Amino acid sequence: MKVALSLLGFLSCAAAGLWPYPAVYDTSNATIAADRPLIVAMNSYSPLLNGAISRYTDIIAKERFTPPADYKLKAPQTSGELGRLLVEVESDSEDLNMETDESYTLDIPAGGDASLKAKTVYGAMRGLETFSQLLDTLEGKRVIRDTPVHIKDQPVLAHRGISLDTSRNYYPVSLLKHTLDAMSYNKINVLHWHIVDAQSWPVESKTYPELQQNGAYGKDMQYSYSDVRDIISYGQERGIRIIPEFDMPGHMYIVGETFPKIVSCMDKQPNWDKYAAEPPSGQLNIAKTDASDFAIKLINEYTKLFTDEVFHLGGDEVNRNCWEEDPDVKEYLKTHNNATVETLLSDFYTKVHGAVKNQKKIGMSWEETLFHSEYVPPKDTLIQTWIDEQSIPKTVQKGYRSIASPASAYYLDCGHGAWLPNFDGNSWCDPYKTWQHIYKFNPWANVTEAERKLVVGAEVALWSEQSDETSLDNYLWPRSAAMAEIAWSGRTDSKGHVRTPEEVVQRMHDQRFRMVGRGVNAEPLQPLWCARNPGHCLLP
Amino acid sequence: MKVALSLLGFLSCAAAGLWPYPAVYDTSNATIAADRPLIVAMNSYSPLLNGAISRYTDIIAKERFTPPADYKLKAPQTSGELGRLLVEVESDSEDLNMETDESYTLDIPAGGDASLKAKTVYGAMRGLETFSQLLDTLEGKRVIRDTPVHIKDQPVLAHRGISLDTSRNYYPVSLLKHTLDAMSYNKINVLHWHIVDAQSWPVESKTYPELQQNGAYGKDMQYSYSDVRDIISYGQERGIRIIPEFDMPGHMYIVGETFPKIVSCMDKQPNWDKYAAEPPSGQLNIAKTDASDFAIKLINEYTKLFTDEVFHLGGDEVNRNCWEEDPDVKEYLKTHNNATVETLLSDFYTKVHGAVKNQKKIGMSWEETLFHSEYVPPKDTLIQTWIDEQSIPKTVQKGYRSIASPASAYYLDCGHGAWLPNFDGNSWCDPYKTWQHIYKFNPWANVTEAERKLVVGAEVALWSEQSDETSLDNYLWPRSAAMAEIAWSGRTDSKGHVRTPEEVVQRMHDQRFRMVGRGVNAEPLQPLWCARNPGHCLLP
Repeated sequence: MKVALSLLGFLSCAAAGLWPYPAVYDTSNATIAADRPLIVAMNSYSPLLNGAISRYTDIIAKERFTPPADYKLKAPQTSGELGRLLVEVESDSEDLNMETDESYTLDIPAGGDASLKAKTVYGAMRGLETFSQLLDTLEGKRVIRDTPVHIKDQPVLAHRGISLDTSRNYYPVSLLKHTLDAMSYNKINVLHWHIVDAQSWPVESKTYPELQQNGAYGKDMQYSYSDVRDIISYGQERGIRIIPEFDMPGHMYIVGETFPKIVSCMDKQPNWDKYAAEPPSGQLNIAKTDASDFAIKLINEYTKLFTDEVFHLGGDEVNRNCWEEDPDVKEYLKTHNNATVETLLSDFYTKVHGAVKNQKKIGMSWEETLFHSEYVPPKDTLIQTWIDEQSIPKTVQKGYRSIASPASAYYLDCGHGAWLPNFDGNSWCDPYKTWQHIYKFNPWANVTEAERKLVVGAEVALWSEQSDETSLDNYLWPRSAAMAEIAWSGRTDSKGHVRTPEEVVQRMHDQRFRMVGRGVNAEPLQPLWCARNPGHCLLP
Repeated sequence: MKVALSLLGFLSCAAAGLWPYPAVYDTSNATIAADRPLIVAMNSYSPLLNGAISRYTDIIAKERFTPPADYKLKAPQTSGELGRLLVEVESDSEDLNMETDESYTLDIPAGGDASLKAKTVYGAMRGLETFSQLLDTLEGKRVIRDTPVHIKDQPVLAHRGISLDTSRNYYPVSLLKHTLDAMSYNKINVLHWHIVDAQSWPVESKTYPELQQNGAYGKDMQYSYSDVRDIISYGQERGIRIIPEFDMPGHMYIVGETFPKIVSCMDKQPNWDKYAAEPPSGQLNIAKTDASDFAIKLINEYTKLFTDEVFHLGGDEVNRNCWEEDPDVKEYLKTHNNATVETLLSDFYTKVHGAVKNQKKIGMSWEETLFHSEYVPPKDTLIQTWIDEQSIPKTVQKGYRSIASPASAYYLDCGHGAWLPNFDGNSWCDPYKTWQHIYKFNPWANVTEAERKLVVGAEVALWSEQSDETSLDNYLWPRSAAMAEIAWSGRTDSKGHVRTPEEVVQRMHDQRFRMVGRGVNAEPLQPLWCARNPGHCLLP
């Protein structure tokens, strides 16, 4: 029988909640013992698959998860015992990109061997995560409830991401890996690495080694080539793509510390607000060929280091005044009759997006490049929207693919107050985005059925003015999980009913406690009493 | 010379910031080496003093603190070398209460032995913390700058506290101890332990063992007698008083799980909001002698376990409707002509406050007991205000002593959004209370000079609906430090100038990074770039 979603939150005897919820999830009523699940690859010698099996074997060996609502349940009678989980993968390809098939089918009989089938190793990884979530421990006894279980699953959105800013404050490599682990528990498949910004340049450059030498916060706050490769591999082993962002031409103050001649309006004080969204100000000088040459060389270097097909060029919060007051820009405009700041910016974008194209990569940009400049990006450019929720339908109306990151719903740093010491006000994007709010956001609002396929992704974002390694888990979890379910499962169940936070809160508790058990400091949603007493903590 | 406070934030060559700022802090311009400071007790065999010396010897041995603004400074020339720190304590008394003298005098000459003198061991502990903060490490070399240093220091408020709710969610004993350590780094001297509430009863009772057996979240989520004594000792070793709160007659649902006959309006659903501020509803039945007898027995037990002179009886958010609809209360009122819910409540307070008095303790109450009931508390009752900032002047006008905990400034849980899954709104006390906001709050506003001495304390509060051990440090730190400076140092410098967040942000960064170095996950205030570039991240 199919479990009605609206009931799941209230049946304290139901199996632990799967998160995100599978596309098809058929269950019955047998409980089987699953003491020592053995996972076996049937037809693949892929190191990626074997690595994933070994990882989940380890997770499962350690995990004893009891859903909070089941804390008083006695060990159940079992009517059978799980045999092995047999994993079959169809394709040998290990390509990981926007087209990668992540579907899987998982069948757990009421006894004997279970089966996990997937087109790719990445689909198998998603199925392994689901399998691990099916195991409950009740009064010390590990079981799978509601068998036979039949799950057929695939994501609604190809790009399900977290954007992390490692420039305002630094995060150690070990913590990025920890985050990749946490992402994999939620089937999130993109780490959008906003690796540099105005404040620091943590990443190694072989073309311009001074950037890191002068721009990293310290020798212990850097990402070497080897670190980056390590993170990319670690991501791939979990089916997670690493998309780097080199934000240009704005947010470039730190480059000017090394190359002052190619950066305009360096750290203007005290009126930085005329030149940048936050201090320190500084943008690549678009009147100078040296500046675009610099940008192209960086692109040529980093499109090789970062192996993903997508390369993010930033393009947000470009400040015209920074250039209008720049003496070199002024001089250039004087001597070039048809040139304006807008044509210069457009020319700059033509060059840098062209450089990305030359490297056979897909460009990604913040929405300003499309909406607030005269430049027309290549049609395959991924447009990441943040300013206005309506930018999503506007993007797809223009025929571009959209990655939804509205500040109003998906900015995880909001609600923490202002961080300028002489301003006792709220965050610019106040209030705090609760998991309920994130869950209720609709990336497809005002998008027609025909344009729907152009909404390809959703990404929550953590800007790090007020966060660093001391607080990362709390900011990301469990809120990113709310986005993850919308992006993987969509907003509706198989009957077209839009799931509400009220209906899913119990599964969300399960996922939160599961993550805590796996070492992720995900914040509690409620008093434990509420997690244990479904339906007793609702607004009347 | 006296360092002008307003300059401190901008002199990157100044010594590391002391937090909280001392009452008198005279400095000069000699830098001395302080590689292996030796701390020696001159005239005391107090285990408390020896323990504190050993603790700070250990902290100092491990700590290599470089103020963020000094990250590029070279190792300085030194003109002398620190000898020993000689600690003298005047009194043998180890009493720790509201009257305890925490003053100290610290003299660091430009070479040779330094001196720390205090009336009590607790004053010596405060001075040891200050001493530890004077040590800077520049390019690997440990120094004390600006010597000779003369510090004469004492707190403005006797009661400087953090209130922590361990009922909505549980915090392990080890984390409470960690918090006591963090408090000692900020000269915070009261842990107001809101130990029980409606959701759980973690603390052992010998009178009613069932309370903990049925009411604790689990065997691993309890505080035994031995745990409590351990925490009290750990606090005393750091000069921190542990004031327990047993909140009554409201917030008592969990008691009704064991003793349903003495609790009214147990877990009313779904309209719990008619009976309580949050689910689950439940108040001691004030019409029943069994209920007040129960309360008195608890008080008799816990006033012995908790050794502090102050005992908090709660008294917040009492809901009249809970009783007006209670059949036993109705019956009582029918048969007792002059009785009303108000007289019953007043009688209840008379009994429980009387019980506290019988145990020779000072009662403490939330402001509703004084302002929203007919009861007149004993004149020595400490009134903790939270509803309205104006409750502070109102309290002292009535001749009571005030502990300031306004939700509008001091509630650390605010700004995290609603926690009822079907309500996508803000916290009731939105927005988030930033450190700037906390720092700017004036506990003495509208209090006359004559009444000023009745403002005896300030307490930030963390209510734990949305926090537990995964997030405690982030919620508490560094924001509690902002309160700590106001409570210890007052709002003004020696010239009467009100310190602003802008002026103190650099010292606040120092304290935050110092705490991180000591293992406290205090959140960053700003990008590290801002901490390193004083004055560059201000609102124009």
